[in-house]
Amino acid sequence: MGGDVGPAVTIPGAALARDRHPEAQFVFVGDETVIRPLLDGHPELAKASRIEHTDVAVRMDDKPSQALRHGRRRSSMWLALEAVRRDECDVAVSAGNTGALMAMSKMCLKTTPGVERPAIAAIWPTLRGESIVLDVGATIGADAEQLASFAVMGEAMARALFGLAQPSVGLLNIGVEEVKGLEYVRAAGRILRESGLPINYFGFVEGDDLGKGTVDVVVTEGFSGNIALKTAEGTANQIASYLRSAMGRSLMSRIGFVLARNAFDTLKEKMDPRRMNGGVFLGLNGVVIKSHGGADAEGFAAAVALGHDMAENGLLAKVAEGLTNRPPVDAQTMGASAEAGS
Amino acid sequence: MGGDVGPAVTIPGAALARDRHPEAQFVFVGDETVIRPLLDGHPELAKASRIEHTDVAVRMDDKPSQALRHGRRRSSMWLALEAVRRDECDVAVSAGNTGALMAMSKMCLKTTPGVERPAIAAIWPTLRGESIVLDVGATIGADAEQLASFAVMGEAMARALFGLAQPSVGLLNIGVEEVKGLEYVRAAGRILRESGLPINYFGFVEGDDLGKGTVDVVVTEGFSGNIALKTAEGTANQIASYLRSAMGRSLMSRIGFVLARNAFDTLKEKMDPRRMNGGVFLGLNGVVIKSHGGADAEGFAAAVALGHDMAENGLLAKVAEGLTNRPPVDAQTMGASAEAGS
Repeated sequence: MGGDVGPAVTIPGAALARDRHPEAQFVFVGDETVIRPLLDGHPELAKASRIEHTDVAVRMDDKPSQALRHGRRRSSMWLALEAVRRDECDVAVSAGNTGALMAMSKMCLKTTPGVERPAIAAIWPTLRGESIVLDVGATIGADAEQLASFAVMGEAMARALFGLAQPSVGLLNIGVEEVKGLEYVRAAGRILRESGLPINYFGFVEGDDLGKGTVDVVVTEGFSGNIALKTAEGTANQIASYLRSAMGRSLMSRIGFVLARNAFDTLKEKMDPRRMNGGVFLGLNGVVIKSHGGADAEGFAAAVALGHDMAENGLLAKVAEGLTNRPPVDAQTMGASAEAGS
Repeated sequence: MGGDVGPAVTIPGAALARDRHPEAQFVFVGDETVIRPLLDGHPELAKASRIEHTDVAVRMDDKPSQALRHGRRRSSMWLALEAVRRDECDVAVSAGNTGALMAMSKMCLKTTPGVERPAIAAIWPTLRGESIVLDVGATIGADAEQLASFAVMGEAMARALFGLAQPSVGLLNIGVEEVKGLEYVRAAGRILRESGLPINYFGFVEGDDLGKGTVDVVVTEGFSGNIALKTAEGTANQIASYLRSAMGRSLMSRIGFVLARNAFDTLKEKMDPRRMNGGVFLGLNGVVIKSHGGADAEGFAAAVALGHDMAENGLLAKVAEGLTNRPPVDAQTMGASAEAGS
């Protein structure tokens, strides 16, 4: 029921996802009177689906506390998570209210043992391919221990999603001042370097390393991560807008544009935010994918496909494995030595 | 002497700046044996210049503490700042080590009364024109009071640089969670809203508002600001690289590219980081401009021109005026009410 449009996007989106993953089964949780007629328009999808009716839906502008008050145990969002908790579904995908989805996910699915706070991981297109960036908005502020947990979870996700044996992990930092960034970021660097985690720790990276794809996993706290994500989206939109207006300026440039249309289509595809749609909630006892609320059917299909891949590749087992491998942190290690990296 | 290349960039850069501002006078501080032959290659510039010799130069990789130890009172960087302090020069422009330049600026020029910590302001190209973003790396961590100071200084710079009577000011924040960002950002919002500052305070903005140009001045703490700045630069480089490779892919796209060359030149100019080169140090008793260390002559010329404009338009007087207008903050105001904005 979530997102700016609701089932008129999520059902066609699921239909596209089903075309690409014909073995997938769907449960649509929400208002049957709205869902049924839309589902009838996609007979192949309908065959692989059932509807779980509820007429309670979390609103896009509900605060998480309001959503929990009104929607716990009965909203479509909660019931979708509950289906994951009961192992009836492998993945919950929602285009709804992010804060409410995270609050309900924590309450319904609980955090994985060893994880204090879940994170939202985004897939970032880079010049080398794709990277994982986390956290992009679940946590506001973090300490060194939490950043180290994010590193472990992001590394596990990179193994699950990219099939890498030893994905490289970097900590997002800044390099212009003597202090080299915030103390907790430096302390997280010491944990990753010295506490014997089986992680390919690269060191510090900066904002421009995101687009370069310097590392497979970039770890940061949610405030900076969200600002980086939205700044990159904004910059891409800005350049696309410059490009459109430059191309329309003269007859010659319009002709040039037509001749180079294939090249532009390639570029457009590379820059298409729908391709990368879907934030993965990490650190929970279940796979939850948040689709962008403004995504269209193609974008929602990408979020469903991402959830499909995460479930198929055993994300939860890989995260659990990463967390189990992690030795307890020695308090001495945390303050022991200066950060040599970056 | 600073930057990746040194005088072989800064002297031709100054020559370009002089062509555009023929009334400008230059003092080159550094090793005369290096500077003199280069300056002789630009006779017009040489006529408007003098050299202040020193053979001590801050290295690009010196820590600020090292730079102060070795370079205080005798390095080219210090002597350039000293010339501003003694009112012999209106502006100091350096392509050198940012951390050292900030540490020396604080020690030599001192902060303006009412300013606890200086900030580095960047000029950000937007769909509406240009905005000012601060701090982009001088402060790591900030409290509400410091953010409010940055707002006052950034607003004054927007008046000086853009000639706006009432530039709009936003606080960079994130909007996905109930908490709506960090507590000190919300507290800064309350100060700007309620303490009677003569500032056109817009409210919170997010990362994607930077490229849109939603407000004239975006205020944030240096860690997030530096990450936003470098992420935007990285994204622009990434898209430029996609575009180049897309355009070279087929004969047809290469022909289209040639026909649309004017349009691409416009785009290239819009995306040219050299146009926007130069971070302005705010909150000091003197105008200091930091050019990107990797800038070429054209980029360095932009930093010199920026310094010229800041001095000509009375940046320091406008900042002082902004700070004087600022009433003392009432402790009660800071905790009084919920943040209504965003």
